[in-house]
Amino acid sequence: MQERRLVKHPREDIDVFFYPESIAVVGASPRPGSIGGAILSNLRESFKGRLYPVNPKYEEIMGLKAYPRLEALPEPPDLAVIAVRAERVPPIVEEAGRIGVRGVIVVSGGFAESGERGRRLQEQLVEIVRRYKMRLIGPNCIGVYNALSGVDTFFLPRDRMKRPHKGPIAIISQSGAFLASVMDWAAEEGIGISKAVNFGNKIDVDEVDLLNYFAEDEHVRAVIMYLEGVNPGRGREFIEAARRVVEAGKAVIALKAGRTSAGAAAAASHTAALAGDYEVYRAAFKQARIIEVDEPIKLFDMAKALVRLTPPKGTRVGIITNAGGPGVIAADRLAELGLKVPRFSDALRERLRSVFPERVAVGNPVDLTGDATPEDFEKALKIVVESGEVDMLMVLALMQPPTMHERVADIIADAAWSHRDKPIVAVTIGSEYAKRMREYLENRGIPVYDFPDRAANALYALAWCTKCRWEGLACSIPVERLAPPPSPESLEEARRIVEEASRRGGGKLLEHEAFHLLSLYGLPVPRYCLAREPGEAPKCFEEVGAPAVAKVVSPDVIHKSDVGGVILGITSSVGAERAFNEIRRNLNEHAPNARFYGVLYQSMVPEGLEVIVGARRDPTFGPVIVFGLGGVLVEVLRDVSIRIAPLTPCDAYEMLSEIRGSRLLEGYRGMPPRDREALAGVILKIARLMLDLPQVRELDLNPVMAYERGAAVADARVIVAPGGKA
Amino acid sequence: MQERRLVKHPREDIDVFFYPESIAVVGASPRPGSIGGAILSNLRESFKGRLYPVNPKYEEIMGLKAYPRLEALPEPPDLAVIAVRAERVPPIVEEAGRIGVRGVIVVSGGFAESGERGRRLQEQLVEIVRRYKMRLIGPNCIGVYNALSGVDTFFLPRDRMKRPHKGPIAIISQSGAFLASVMDWAAEEGIGISKAVNFGNKIDVDEVDLLNYFAEDEHVRAVIMYLEGVNPGRGREFIEAARRVVEAGKAVIALKAGRTSAGAAAAASHTAALAGDYEVYRAAFKQARIIEVDEPIKLFDMAKALVRLTPPKGTRVGIITNAGGPGVIAADRLAELGLKVPRFSDALRERLRSVFPERVAVGNPVDLTGDATPEDFEKALKIVVESGEVDMLMVLALMQPPTMHERVADIIADAAWSHRDKPIVAVTIGSEYAKRMREYLENRGIPVYDFPDRAANALYALAWCTKCRWEGLACSIPVERLAPPPSPESLEEARRIVEEASRRGGGKLLEHEAFHLLSLYGLPVPRYCLAREPGEAPKCFEEVGAPAVAKVVSPDVIHKSDVGGVILGITSSVGAERAFNEIRRNLNEHAPNARFYGVLYQSMVPEGLEVIVGARRDPTFGPVIVFGLGGVLVEVLRDVSIRIAPLTPCDAYEMLSEIRGSRLLEGYRGMPPRDREALAGVILKIARLMLDLPQVRELDLNPVMAYERGAAVADARVIVAPGGKA
Repeated sequence: MQERRLVKHPREDIDVFFYPESIAVVGASPRPGSIGGAILSNLRESFKGRLYPVNPKYEEIMGLKAYPRLEALPEPPDLAVIAVRAERVPPIVEEAGRIGVRGVIVVSGGFAESGERGRRLQEQLVEIVRRYKMRLIGPNCIGVYNALSGVDTFFLPRDRMKRPHKGPIAIISQSGAFLASVMDWAAEEGIGISKAVNFGNKIDVDEVDLLNYFAEDEHVRAVIMYLEGVNPGRGREFIEAARRVVEAGKAVIALKAGRTSAGAAAAASHTAALAGDYEVYRAAFKQARIIEVDEPIKLFDMAKALVRLTPPKGTRVGIITNAGGPGVIAADRLAELGLKVPRFSDALRERLRSVFPERVAVGNPVDLTGDATPEDFEKALKIVVESGEVDMLMVLALMQPPTMHERVADIIADAAWSHRDKPIVAVTIGSEYAKRMREYLENRGIPVYDFPDRAANALYALAWCTKCRWEGLACSIPVERLAPPPSPESLEEARRIVEEASRRGGGKLLEHEAFHLLSLYGLPVPRYCLAREPGEAPKCFEEVGAPAVAKVVSPDVIHKSDVGGVILGITSSVGAERAFNEIRRNLNEHAPNARFYGVLYQSMVPEGLEVIVGARRDPTFGPVIVFGLGGVLVEVLRDVSIRIAPLTPCDAYEMLSEIRGSRLLEGYRGMPPRDREALAGVILKIARLMLDLPQVRELDLNPVMAYERGAAVADARVIVAPGGKA
Repeated sequence: MQERRLVKHPREDIDVFFYPESIAVVGASPRPGSIGGAILSNLRESFKGRLYPVNPKYEEIMGLKAYPRLEALPEPPDLAVIAVRAERVPPIVEEAGRIGVRGVIVVSGGFAESGERGRRLQEQLVEIVRRYKMRLIGPNCIGVYNALSGVDTFFLPRDRMKRPHKGPIAIISQSGAFLASVMDWAAEEGIGISKAVNFGNKIDVDEVDLLNYFAEDEHVRAVIMYLEGVNPGRGREFIEAARRVVEAGKAVIALKAGRTSAGAAAAASHTAALAGDYEVYRAAFKQARIIEVDEPIKLFDMAKALVRLTPPKGTRVGIITNAGGPGVIAADRLAELGLKVPRFSDALRERLRSVFPERVAVGNPVDLTGDATPEDFEKALKIVVESGEVDMLMVLALMQPPTMHERVADIIADAAWSHRDKPIVAVTIGSEYAKRMREYLENRGIPVYDFPDRAANALYALAWCTKCRWEGLACSIPVERLAPPPSPESLEEARRIVEEASRRGGGKLLEHEAFHLLSLYGLPVPRYCLAREPGEAPKCFEEVGAPAVAKVVSPDVIHKSDVGGVILGITSSVGAERAFNEIRRNLNEHAPNARFYGVLYQSMVPEGLEVIVGARRDPTFGPVIVFGLGGVLVEVLRDVSIRIAPLTPCDAYEMLSEIRGSRLLEGYRGMPPRDREALAGVILKIARLMLDLPQVRELDLNPVMAYERGAAVADARVIVAPGGKA
């Protein structure tokens, strides 16, 4: 459905939705309870440009001159917002295209989300938009909100959905209801939002366009996403667009809905987009450097900190508290999130001890206890911040004890502003008095939370970039060293193999074809040789060497052992020839109708740690690469790591260390460590192959033997799609 | 530190803390900013009984006659609250004991939490309390709050810490600061609390006493706990007390702090109690039927639902929403929590379809879409509730669309009240208007949440009892069938073995001793026979049968193979005698100083699925039993299940199915299913042995071979503590 296109100047064609100079509201109505009425009324209140109601039934609406149709307007508007019945939408969009409208928002529902007739109407829309090269948001959406320009197509009255104040956060939401309700919530929480978009069925403008736009938008410092599924074929661009945002120094935080099959079923009925396979999305988020969360509130808890604070230099957190229990809760949650709550050095403890009485615990957390005064916080903050032993701080200032005073807010804020390189978040639990504190601190730019776990999530998000794997050593290795591209001749040959297989109907490549294909990419396959006649067996044996394995080659045999098609441990030319004849005899006996292409001789691969490298094509993201340990670990526990091609060497090394059983690769119980470079090479070569050869649908190297030095592919299965050229 | 005692009438001796008729405040002061002043001032405001300030410096405090000491009071008060310097506390408690005070709350800090001197003062307190058989809460605590009687020793002014309204929730908190701040927070949230206790260093009254008390307290319907660690030796009583509460139809929800090593370190400095091993606590919570949470807010989100709603009959949740995205978020989180979001039957879908237009998704969630009216909710609720296809409901009623109206609150409440067997929770996200809705619904008794994941947690808690394992089939098996107790003679013999080993200094039992001990409990050990002379070898071989293994028996050899002390595959009497001589020769050569007790012959155990059963003693909980799969699963992934003895057959069966690799037991890839009854028997017999024989410190059956029929202990290690009788 989605046409791939190069967005050369994203600002230009998406900009029209956020900063139009004129807007037409088609379906405008004087009834504020109607959708067209609510949109016009909201725009009239906030939008500063030229506003044109379009409705043939009225001369004037809400004091504005009304027009019967778009073509009757004094100028082609920059943006047309359409809120009429679905059947009437396509001709209006056609009209908009004709007069040169650059952006259209179709609020109306009744398209692909609601049955066959709607699906046809939606196809018409797609065709019109392509023909006129317009940009369209929707249909079936609430559209666009921009606090800066006053564009506000959300048809929700302001007493029902408050508008948040201006701020550096942008929201992209696949659900209109989610967006409307969290905007209302954020307004109450004092979270600043600059732009928010809901695109409903997203037949044109989607996450990719908006991420690209926000990457360059100076008013946006963090992007929050509610995502059900990326459009088919747009996965790779989605990853790249998100990386562009992150590389511009901004954060992307996503809530993926439809993680479970129950959720995915709900998502499928909710919008027309089918939710993808969650494991692949997780991989995409990692590669795109998107912070994934599982609860809506975390989106905002993190964004609030990310837009205000500088990323820390490391992951060490210092905790200063006047409340023991909440300090322990903080320490637990930080550790569970993978952050460090380091033990303070003796020197630091002594420095703290020299200023605090015995009741104060001078470890990490520093527990100033319930008698603490704001000045105690000041002293502790100064000593801990200046120690160099922490990279960021959580200050828990509970206001219940009478020794506490609002002054502590200034103390925390001053510390934060004089040490911008050590981000500080604050926590205070409670009701009115605590709330006053929170508001005061928030106004001074300190992110404050009502429970320590929420603050811990914020610190986790801040440290996300610090923990980012692209700073790892492996990332400086050029991919060409681990997985050199095949020579032009090899590539040509590889293409020929899969195209031929594809033309003859696709399916599983024969053993020698698969090994040949893999060898063209430099993958460590065993020595092999195909004998078509018994007389070729000795030569083959000589090529392969002892001990060798002989296997029947037939497109009609699935389980070779079942037909007596495998003979192990061949150690002589005579034995090789005997094996040929025996295999042919067995085949005749057990599968008389199977075609016989010959016998493959391959060198026996020595035992090693068994791992699996596989690949398949995802309709959204393209080639997906899977790595896991062999045997029970992958089969029972599904202990695998997934990435989307193309891969960097970091990605490959990360896959090796990400699986739960990775300790086995490090050398375990007297077993040697395994050659990570060789395994990373296998992974990267498979990624390259999948990108080069679109006809390869699926691929399994199982097992790959991992050794102390090197690795070997012991068996391979390559499935080719039917139909010739890709 | 803690004396074990039988609490025969918990109501009587704990009751005095909650319902005293008279209270003396020792250290009372006219300064409301001081601790003694704040306590007196709060009690004066809320406590209806007789109140006596005690302070030699004043004649009168806050309009009340003051007394110089406890002994000067006109009557012995039921309760004495002490807030004076630590050094002065022991003589005052002594005085209280002398005049017959039954309950003492020591608010003062400066005891074991703050160094050696404090520790000595605390020991004095323990001695005095024991001597007078008084009950004491503290020291170093904020004490007791009872909304019903007005007892309130929390020394926090009411403008800093609001008091929540009366309600059926009780809180037990090891942290005073945690308790004070969440009470303040709960007051704002409108959560009703009847009783709350913080016991600080808990030298006397602890979680066990309070749980026992709340089990019988008709004003309490749910108990919330913030727990760092249970006192040494009190683990088993803790489990029993919590079960008593649950069996009284009430819920216990716990936040365990000190789950991570960072948290445990923080907890250790925070109070004097050392946090225990978290994995053992998790097992204890499961066995005690305590709902464990990892965030403070979940304690209240769950409690709020548990005290208002009846447990559902099953785990199927229906979702009705006017907001697609939040509906998907709900479905995901419910599924992640292990609840079911069932697909509706065709009949139910048709019934819904007959009343709703095409835009409404009639699956589960029922998505009424943004145009829904309160009446749409009414229709959907009626159809779904009456379908019998769900056990509980989440209703997401977003109030942003203008078609919504507060009337929906009545509709939800009416549905909830007319179908009490199908608990309903509600969600509405947003600011003012949404908040009004929330308050209105809460007042009508419906638990409401501001995000769907919070509501999902509440439903999870409601379904907890439904999911409770004690309803499982395995629970009807009598433990005696799976693990019959040893005969009196066998028990005698078992005691003799471990006591003898203990007397000779403890350590590892010799092979034949270990096998003998295990066999007395009916554990499936191999046939074995100890030959002390070469001449005994043939007889031993005959007893054991072929194939046999011969092993050196020596208390001085750790790795038998290293000294040539193991010979496998013995198939004849001659071979058995040869093996004896060879092993003795090898020992002389490789370990000339090692004692030689003989050679053990044992039958070789056939290969099976390797599992591990182990046990150790935990200082808090006593015997802890561990089950896991052998090899890489237990070693690399620590895939084990833990329980605390005594075990029920349900516990044992649950251990088998709780490990991640449990599919291997079910039969996997052509391998047979394993004998769960035999494995449960091994687990239960080990639990029994650990309870019978306190000298056994540690025990490892590794591996146990699990077969399609039966199981066999292939190797065993039993460690006995030194020192003779337990």
